[in-house]
Parts: sequence; structure tokens; C-alpha cells
Amino acid sequence: MEGARQRQDQLTKPRGSLGRLEELAIRLAGITGHVRPRFPSKAVIVLAADHGVVEEGVSAYPQAVTAQMVGNILAGGAAINVLARGAGARVVVADLGVAALLPDDARLIQKKIGHGTRNMARGPALSANEALEAIRVGAEIVEGEVDRGLDLVATGDMGIGNTTASSAIVAAIASWAPAEVTGRGTGVDEAGWRRKVAAIERALEINRPDPRDPLGVLAKVGGYEIAGLVGVILEGAARRIPVIVDGFISGTAALVATELCPAARDYLIAAHSSVEVGHRMILEQLELVPLLNLDLRLGEGTGAAMAMHLIDAAAALLDEMATFAEAGVSQRAETTVAEFKSPLS
Amino acid sequence: MEGARQRQDQLTKPRGSLGRLEELAIRLAGITGHVRPRFPSKAVIVLAADHGVVEEGVSAYPQAVTAQMVGNILAGGAAINVLARGAGARVVVADLGVAALLPDDARLIQKKIGHGTRNMARGPALSANEALEAIRVGAEIVEGEVDRGLDLVATGDMGIGNTTASSAIVAAIASWAPAEVTGRGTGVDEAGWRRKVAAIERALEINRPDPRDPLGVLAKVGGYEIAGLVGVILEGAARRIPVIVDGFISGTAALVATELCPAARDYLIAAHSSVEVGHRMILEQLELVPLLNLDLRLGEGTGAAMAMHLIDAAAALLDEMATFAEAGVSQRAETTVAEFKSPLS
Repeated sequence: MEGARQRQDQLTKPRGSLGRLEELAIRLAGITGHVRPRFPSKAVIVLAADHGVVEEGVSAYPQAVTAQMVGNILAGGAAINVLARGAGARVVVADLGVAALLPDDARLIQKKIGHGTRNMARGPALSANEALEAIRVGAEIVEGEVDRGLDLVATGDMGIGNTTASSAIVAAIASWAPAEVTGRGTGVDEAGWRRKVAAIERALEINRPDPRDPLGVLAKVGGYEIAGLVGVILEGAARRIPVIVDGFISGTAALVATELCPAARDYLIAAHSSVEVGHRMILEQLELVPLLNLDLRLGEGTGAAMAMHLIDAAAALLDEMATFAEAGVSQRAETTVAEFKSPLS
Repeated sequence: MEGARQRQDQLTKPRGSLGRLEELAIRLAGITGHVRPRFPSKAVIVLAADHGVVEEGVSAYPQAVTAQMVGNILAGGAAINVLARGAGARVVVADLGVAALLPDDARLIQKKIGHGTRNMARGPALSANEALEAIRVGAEIVEGEVDRGLDLVATGDMGIGNTTASSAIVAAIASWAPAEVTGRGTGVDEAGWRRKVAAIERALEINRPDPRDPLGVLAKVGGYEIAGLVGVILEGAARRIPVIVDGFISGTAALVATELCPAARDYLIAAHSSVEVGHRMILEQLELVPLLNLDLRLGEGTGAAMAMHLIDAAAALLDEMATFAEAGVSQRAETTVAEFKSPLS
């Protein structure tokens, strides 16, 4: 970071004039351990799973959409495909717990641990072993990508009902009231929102998750894809690969990951500020300032894919710009009032 | 715009979930007149010129830096080169009024109208004819690029002293106090900032620009590159090419352009929110919400080049995403409370 900072100050621009891109480049140097890091090999890891709590009428879309959207992503037609193509990133899709049997497809990583979670409003969504297994699968997917040269990873999710699980996790860990951390997800109406809050309240009442036990919280009111993203984040951080955290679901996974391992926080880059109210609370808690604010509420890793452009830009500026010496440009004059004789004075 | 909106609502995502990117894509359709616009041919137009007001000690850098930085941009070592390369845009550099004689270079558009402006603290910076000539040159540069297939244009500037001229223009047009619209530019210290405000106050006192005469304001307290950017903006808008407005200098040109022709406003996309206080006031005045907020204060078109990624993303999403029908994905269920029988009730 010190080397990157020194180089930053020799580049042909007023010191600090590239604002947050300068800080970002210096952080990227710290994460990777390289003074001039670059990120040619990028992946968005999209983990898919279903949620038993949809029985409570918490989502605007039917559960079948999770499997349908996995198909859409595999076919290249989803928002994340478009944005990842634009950012030069590959999309890695894994089934960690979709309720439907998905067709055999070589492009899909088949790691189904269960057919959706159990309904957390009636009991624990996952067992502790299931949650741990999902974390392990997430970490393994990153390992596989590292073998393919990965140097920048983004988190993505697909799962009808997963904003309900995420709100429950955030409420449990941060001891916030469910109504405060619950948004409209894919767009439930007022009655749906009330059902969603009620389901979270029941889930917390029945399961009594302990805020000091993040794994327990993840199992009791979480989901397969959220736990998998915890694994993606921890493995990425451990490998010194910058982890771009997408929106609310990914942010919830980041919250759990940093509860498990506080040092992981420094390897995270917050992509954007989602419309979901709980996401802003997570970002404040993690003291991460998002790069973008585009009122997104889609998930899939869409915000993270767009943030890749800014990460590439920050790294390219640090790496490619000419220094004052190389370009023969005069540095800042340390002027004093006395040096200037105003023609009017 | 109506066609783009209809398509937007058929794409495989919850309606509105791509937030500002959806609105942006619809605006791009309106600007270009195409339901699915794309932008393969992009240019950042960087206009360079000097400012006589630097005699007053208003800048942290010596005037020679303008010419040196033009050389740096031509050699490909400046921030704008790095960012334009990343965005797939060409950099078009023109000398409209640099105080030094620049070496012959086929890559430089030589359109010098004068050797820097006159010191606006002592009299008019430009004559009305010089300002008009600069506008004409800016428009001609866009015409030339249109002949090369241009379909997305960004504004950029290079000129030591040009935040002083921009603050004077904004103060004159919007009747704001100079101290309110004056920032630190490339980074003057407190004494430098006071000299800068004093120079603007003297310029307004001596030249008495009329806020109802934007051309007069542009001549009296403006600059060659700022006037040139007015031409770039007006010609871009007239050709139905989206114009990405960079930071404070470009924003000042946009303010003048929309005073001359209010309809031009709808063709402008605000790239980012600069650190310069006057820039935020311009954006409010123009009712433009910037895409990025990265605390930049560099100019050159750097923020605009980065905004190109978001514009490409918005257009690609509208163009490339699958529709619900194409992907076989279920649409939103219009659920009612009655449809859901909670297993707990």
C-alpha cells in the first residue's frame, strides 16, 4: 500500500484529484500484495437456492422462478450475463439448494445440498451441518476458479425468498427490529411486506438465534446460497483476491463472514448501495462505502459486475499513467502570496 | 422512449429492479431515436486553452502545465488516456487557446484562436467574436467525429486557471456570490483561494456580465476551451448524440449551452459529482443527477470516460437481456393475502 501511495503521488495529476479511485487502487495493492495490481481474470459467482419461507407468501414471484432464472443465466439471457460480458468476467453458476431438479448442464456446478431450506417460520431453515457444507462448497468453487487464474471475484445470488432470509439474519446479528431491516424484495405489495415481517418475527421467536453465534444464525434463519457466499467471501479473502460484494443478499453473507473472521472485511469492496433498507445498515456496520448508487434491487451480482469497471479503472490509472518525470510535466508550485505581484496592486 | 419502456418491462427481472439504469436506457432511446441504442463509436473531446487570470495567483500549478499536459495526453500518459482506453473511446485533443506554441503533431487538432485569454480581472477575457469562434470550432470538431461514425461523445478540458473562469461564469449566470461557487481547483491553499475569489469579484465588477446574455458572460469571464465545449454540447445535441458532461468546467459549458438553447438539456448525461462546490450547484440548476460520485476533481473528461461504462451497461441490458417469454420465466404473480394459507394460521 505504501508503494502504491508513493506511485500515486508521482502520477501526472494533482495529488488526490482522482478521489476515491486513488484510495481504491491503494486498497487493491494492499489486498493483492502488488504495487501495481491488474485483474485480467474475473468471475461472478452466482449461487442459487430456494427458501421454505416462501410458503408464508413473502415474495412477489413464485418459487419456480429460481430454477427458471438459473436456466436463463445458463443460456446467457439474464442481466448478470449482459453485465459480466461487458466487464470481461465469466459467470459461474452453482445450484446449492434449488427446490426443483435442474436439467443436466455442463455449465452448471451441481452442488445441491437440499431441495430448498425448511420454512424458518416453523423451525430452523438448515441444520448446522448443512450450513457448514454450503460454506465449504462456496469456498471450493473459489478454489476451482483460482486454479483457472482468478484474480477478482464478485458475489451473486438467485433465490426467491432470499431477501426474507437476509433480513432475518441481519435482524438477528445486529439486534434490529425485523420491520426496520425488511424491504420490498422483488416488489411485494404492502400486505406482502407485512406477511414478510411477520414471518421473520416468527422465525426469530421460534429459533431464538444467538447474535454471538453467526453460524447458528446462518443455519436457523439463513439459506444455502447465503451460506455459500460466506464461503466465497472467506476463501477469496484468504487467497488475497479482492471480493466485490454485490447487494443485500451478498452483503448479508459479508456480515456473517466478518462476524466469523473480522480480518476478512479489509478484502471486501462494496459494489453499490441497494434499494433494500437492510443493505444500507450492513454497509454502515461494515464501514464500507459503496462505489455505485444506482437504485438497484436485482441481485445476481449485477451491481458487482458494474463495479468491476471502476476497479479496473483504478488499477489501470495506477499502472498506466505517466509520472511527472516521465512526461516532463511541472509539479505543483508551492507558491506564497509574496510570489504573486498582482498587476492590480 | 415508449418502445424502450415497453421492452424494459418484458425483460427477465422484476420491473424497475435495475433502477437508474432502466431510466438511463429509456433516455438514451429518446436521445438517439432508437428503441435499442448501442454506442460502439465513442470519443472524449478534450479542449485545451490558457487563462490570463493566472497572473492573479489563482492556481496551484504554473501556466506551462497546460501545454505540458497536452503533450502528455498526445503521448497517451494522462489519466484521460487510460480511462478512455478502458472505455473503448478515442481521445480527440484540440488546442483552442494554449498560451504556448505547441509542436506540430498530426494527432493534435490545431485551432488556436489566441494565446490564452486576457486577464478577466482587468477587462474582458475574450471578445464576443473570439467566443463565437471557439463555439464554432467545438461544433466543427463534433461534425468531424460524426463523419467518423460517432455515436457517444464526452466533454473534457485542460487549462490551468479554468476553474476560476468557470466559477466566474456560474456566479454571473446564476447570480451567486463568487465565494459560494469557488473551490480549490487543482488544490490552491487558503491564501490562493482568497486570491481566486478576489479575482472573480474584480472580474464581475469590471466586466459587469449580464446574466440574460450567456454569450456575453462567456466572452467576458470565460475561456476558449469552455466556449469550445459549448459548441461540442450544442452540436452533439443537434445530432441526437448523447453528450456526457464531465465535471465543473464541462458543467459550466453545459450551463451556458442550455441558457442559449434550453432543449439541449435533454441530451446531456451528467457523469459524476465533482468535489468543486460550483459543480453541484450547476447539476441542481440543470436538474441532472450524476451517475457517479467518486470525489474526482481532475477534469480532462475523466469522470465522463468512466460514465461510458454505465451507459454501455444500460444500453446492453435493454438490447441483450432475454424477455420473460423468450426465457420461459414466470412473471410476477399478482398475489392477494387470500391466496396464501399460512401453515401457521
